[in-house]
Formats: sequence, structure tokens, C-alpha cells
Amino acid sequence: MEIAEGIISLPDPLLLQCGARLAPLDIAYETYGRLDASRSNAVLICHGLTADQHAVSTQTAEGGRAGWWDKAIGPGRALDTNRYCIISTNAIGSFGGSSSPASIDVATGRQYGMRFPFVTIADMADAQARFADALGIDRFHAVIGGCMGGFQVLEWMLRHPRRLRRAVVISATPRTSTHNIALWEVMREAIRRDPNWQNGDYYYGPPPHSGVALLAMFGALLWMDRATLAERFGLRTVAGRPLSYGFAPEFEIEAFLHRVGANAAGRLDANALIYLTRAIDYFDIGRGHPDLAHALAAVTAPTLFISYSGDWRYPSGEVEGMHCALLAAGGDSRHAVLDSAWGHGGFLQEPEKLEPLFRAFLDPESV
Amino acid sequence: MEIAEGIISLPDPLLLQCGARLAPLDIAYETYGRLDASRSNAVLICHGLTADQHAVSTQTAEGGRAGWWDKAIGPGRALDTNRYCIISTNAIGSFGGSSSPASIDVATGRQYGMRFPFVTIADMADAQARFADALGIDRFHAVIGGCMGGFQVLEWMLRHPRRLRRAVVISATPRTSTHNIALWEVMREAIRRDPNWQNGDYYYGPPPHSGVALLAMFGALLWMDRATLAERFGLRTVAGRPLSYGFAPEFEIEAFLHRVGANAAGRLDANALIYLTRAIDYFDIGRGHPDLAHALAAVTAPTLFISYSGDWRYPSGEVEGMHCALLAAGGDSRHAVLDSAWGHGGFLQEPEKLEPLFRAFLDPESV
Repeated sequence: MEIAEGIISLPDPLLLQCGARLAPLDIAYETYGRLDASRSNAVLICHGLTADQHAVSTQTAEGGRAGWWDKAIGPGRALDTNRYCIISTNAIGSFGGSSSPASIDVATGRQYGMRFPFVTIADMADAQARFADALGIDRFHAVIGGCMGGFQVLEWMLRHPRRLRRAVVISATPRTSTHNIALWEVMREAIRRDPNWQNGDYYYGPPPHSGVALLAMFGALLWMDRATLAERFGLRTVAGRPLSYGFAPEFEIEAFLHRVGANAAGRLDANALIYLTRAIDYFDIGRGHPDLAHALAAVTAPTLFISYSGDWRYPSGEVEGMHCALLAAGGDSRHAVLDSAWGHGGFLQEPEKLEPLFRAFLDPESV
Repeated sequence: MEIAEGIISLPDPLLLQCGARLAPLDIAYETYGRLDASRSNAVLICHGLTADQHAVSTQTAEGGRAGWWDKAIGPGRALDTNRYCIISTNAIGSFGGSSSPASIDVATGRQYGMRFPFVTIADMADAQARFADALGIDRFHAVIGGCMGGFQVLEWMLRHPRRLRRAVVISATPRTSTHNIALWEVMREAIRRDPNWQNGDYYYGPPPHSGVALLAMFGALLWMDRATLAERFGLRTVAGRPLSYGFAPEFEIEAFLHRVGANAAGRLDANALIYLTRAIDYFDIGRGHPDLAHALAAVTAPTLFISYSGDWRYPSGEVEGMHCALLAAGGDSRHAVLDSAWGHGGFLQEPEKLEPLFRAFLDPESV
């Protein structure tokens, strides 16, 4: 499989929804497979909150790093690199090299930190459209994404309807729920209350690892439901040790949470989490419309919605409502509800369940 | 209504489950109503995690402080002070004047902090029994409590079966779930990662308000379920303002969370939260028994279990299992499932729903 990576820097400013202009607009990307001569086999994939453009593992002399959709991308896989050129860009605001709080503000010569302008999910899609312009890709064979990536696909469908032939929206609801806004705000507070955060200017000192660890531990409690936690960890003590009546991690669930925290602290960037979760808070495709059918009236791309029956934070019922609204608006829509013990993360953990759906839907002869 | 309050200091050491001896044993208490000559009308109430012995509001020249069960206690109320002397003690480990991390360690002359010995729910019940000895109360007319207080009632039933005529266990399951252990551990981490916590020695410096605020915000997400949050706050902005695309609290749910955090920071003690949540982690009346029926075999007091249909963290189904186990063990048990929009906190918010149940069950002629 042919793999390329790079960063494109576009000097023309991107007008953001908040009214600010972002320049230069940097987009970091990776591509898997080869773009055909007519540039018609490009599939754009949009990553979720805690991932970046690195969707496929690479091995270099310095070591390797796992990709977030390794099992989905490759020759003969759900996203078949023998047929499609898979393009993965880093969302703006994120931490993979695209314009973000870690970028240098040309006006000051310093990293933006919290002075980076406010970006929305729509801005992320617009930035990707500018990237496509730069590559000479007029129309994607498909735009695909899950969770925050799914929100980006929805913005593509609404803002750039003629530029995608198919849309695949996974584990995404049409708007952010009160519960999710609450969750993100508590997570942001965990960062902001870490003294190392320094109002976002931690680039030259110790990063706010403690706040990031805490928010990840907290998040772990919400991706798994009560029954899953009980099944997976029960009340077992670490290594089956007898009870010690103390404060160190005693139960396996505690040791697990500490591993989650330590892993996140080394891997996730605090300011990116603040910007991206805030972008999600504002996401609502129905805002300003009487109902979702009106909101989706501009959509022309045949659409595949995928949700997971165990995903209580992005429930299948709300995805079904969006699917029906698209049908009501005269759109071409289908909705598949999958089962996965991973719930919301099913698309990352069990891409093999996506394969038959993708194969049928992405086929150039289909829809 | 006659109200008294005080602290009793018992010089004899209390042998704790962890093997340590706690001396002196201080118990802070309040009483409402008058103990009769035969000392047979005493009702012990056990408070929950974030409360203390102050169950009934008092007004003094310096101002007042609300009690946690104001609406339940008083002349003619569910806990009728014309008939019963209601005794409310502060759980050891807690922050109302009973022996706790804030107590002076006589061995060093300094506050214990995290050097306070490890206490369990069983230790809390044993301390209350010692308190009853000191008051000359051989047998309580009833022992009653909700949540952590309900766990204490269960320990009373098992450890001091002859010393209570009736037991009322509210919003309490027979053991702590994996999910709750996980929640408590993340909350403790929020405190421990606040630099002001100082390993528990914050008594002479600024207290770890930030960690406490954070854990309370996080907790708020778990006492209310997704539907309740959506119903109560929706996606309304603060004061109906237009969207600002910024990081300050924008949505009502965010402003609510910040109020929760600020309120908790001034009111809850960090070390008490660490000790009490850890005591809850270890709570499991079935430990060492083949099943709950065997575990409950020693119980003699007629028992009323009360649970709330909306309490997903302490589910009615698990309470029903404990009720059936007590019946199977030959016990005298009843279980009432109540509805409350407050779920787990229903016993605090809607005591009027408890009144008919209490009145029938507590009547000296009943059971």
C-alpha cells in the first residue's frame, strides 16, 4: 500500500464561523493508496476527538505508532487501498500538525495557546475543503467519519453537498446533548484546574499531564456502562491479593483507571482537548431550522448512517431520527444499527463489522 | 421540638476492622425530641456521604444552617419528635466533630490527616454502638439511614442484631458496585491531584477547594441521568443569550455545574471525602458468605427496604435481591420501590413519600 504524509500550508486566510480569519491554514495529512488520474477515487476520512491523521500504523527506524483505523484500511479491507486513495487529514484545532493552539501565531512569533481563534466542526470541514482544492480534488468518492469525524461528515453534507458522492456518518447524533456538553465542561475544568496548564501557555514548561490524566479516567467511566464495568472487572482485587484496607489501588477497576490516566497523559494535548470538545458543544445541524428535515434539505449525497445499539451517549434512536428526517427531505439514506460490546467505540474496535456495509455502499456501481 | 447537640469523647479505644485502635473515640451528635424514661423511644439516623449530624435546621444569632432531613423530622412528621427521640450522630471519618482525619492525634499533637486509621462502614456502626452505650441506650426503636447511612444500618443489623427493634435501609445495595468504586476513585484522584491537598496536610494552608469542586461537578453528571439533564437544562444558553463561540460557560448546564462546584468547595472536606468513599468501596455484606441469605442469617430486626425506580447506581433490582435473601433467611422483610425524579436522592428531596411507610413501620404496635 502506498503511504504518503505531509503538511500543506495555505496562505489565504480561512474565514471561521466566529468571524476570525485563520492564516496560514496548515493541514497535516496522510494518504493510503494511489489517487487515480481523474482524481475521482479519493475517500476522505475524518478522525475522532482523541485521534489524529495517523490512521494506519507505520514502522520506521525509530519505532512505530499504531493507527486509529488500522484494521479498516488496506488492500482488500473495508477501505480498500487497491481501489481508493484514502485521505486522512488532521482536524484544525487538533494536535497533529494542522493549525491549532500549538501553532505559531505569525503576528507574535509565539504559540497561540488559548489565543488561537475559536473553531467549529463546520470550520474543520471548510478547512478540509480548502485542502481538497489544493490537491485538485473536486469531489470525493466518499467522506467518512465517526464521532467527531461523523459530525464533520454532516457538515460536509450541508456545506459542500456537491463535493461528495457518498457520506458515511458513524456514531454521531445531529446535535450535542446536554449530557455531553456537561461531560466536556467537566473535562475542560480538569485541565484548567491543573496549575501546569498556565492558561494554555504550557508549551515551554511541564504540560498539564495531571489534568489530562484525570479527564481520561473520568471519561473511562462514561464510555463503559455499569454492566460492562461489572462484567469486565467485577470486584476482583489487583493480582487477586487479599484486602489491605488502604488507599492504594486495591481493585482491578482502579488499576485500570490509573492505566487509562497515565496513557492519556503522555498522548493527548490539553489545549487541543479544550478546543475540540468546545467545537463539539456548539455542534447542532438543526440550529436555525424548524426541524431536521428542513436542516437536511440541501443534502444530495447518498448517506449511510451507522450507530451502535449499546451507545447510550449517541443513541441509535437519535440517529434513526436523523435518517428519517433525511428521507423526509427527499434524500437517499440508510441506517444500520450494529451491536458491539464497545458501544460508541465499535467503529474503531470492530471494523470488520463495517466491511460488508462499506463494501456495498462504496462500490462505484452502488447507490 | 427539643433539640440538643454535643460531642462525647470516649477514652477506651475502638478496635477498627483494619486492626488499628482509635482513641479517644469522639462522637458528635444532635438529638431531636425527648428520650423517654425507659430509653426505649430512641431512633438512630445515619447520614449519607456528604452530610453530617446536622439533620434539622437551627437558627442562632449567627445565622442558620439547613439540615439534611428537615422535612422528615419534627412534630407530626415522618420521624415524629412527639413520639421518638431522634438521634443523629456524625459518622467517624466524617467532618462534623467525630473522630476523623481532622482530629488531633494525641500521639503527635497534630491533626491526623492521612495518618488517621482506616475506617469501614462496620467501624462507623460500632462507634455508634459505643455511643449508645454511653447514653445508656440498650436498644434503638429503629435504626434508619440512606445511601452511606443505609450501609451503616445493614452493618447494625449484622453486628448488633439485638440492639435495634426495626431497621430501615434506604437507597442502599448490599455491596458497592464496580461502577461506584470507579467513580469514587476518580473523585479521590481529583482531590489528590490538587496541589493544595498536600498529602492530606492542608489544615494550615489553603484547602484543596479546586479538587473538591471538580469532583462535585463530575458527581453531578452521575446523579442525574441523560434524560433528566436534557429535560432540566436542554440546550438553553445562560440568560437566553446568543451564542458567543467562546470558552466561558455558555449553556445553562455549564453554569449549573459551576454552581455545584463552587458550593461543594466551600462545604465539603477533602480528607473526609477520601476516607468515606474508601469505606464505601470496601462495603460488601456478602463477603465471606456463599450467598446473601447466609450473610443475613443473623438478622433479627424486622426490616423495611426502600429504593427508587430511577436510581441507576443503586438499582431497585439489587435491593429486591437483598430483600428476598432476608426472607429466604427467615427474616421479616418488606421492600417499597418509590418513584422520584431525584432518583438516589429521593429520600432527601421528597421525604413526604416516606411518611406513610415510616408511620406504619415505626408504630410501636406494628411488625
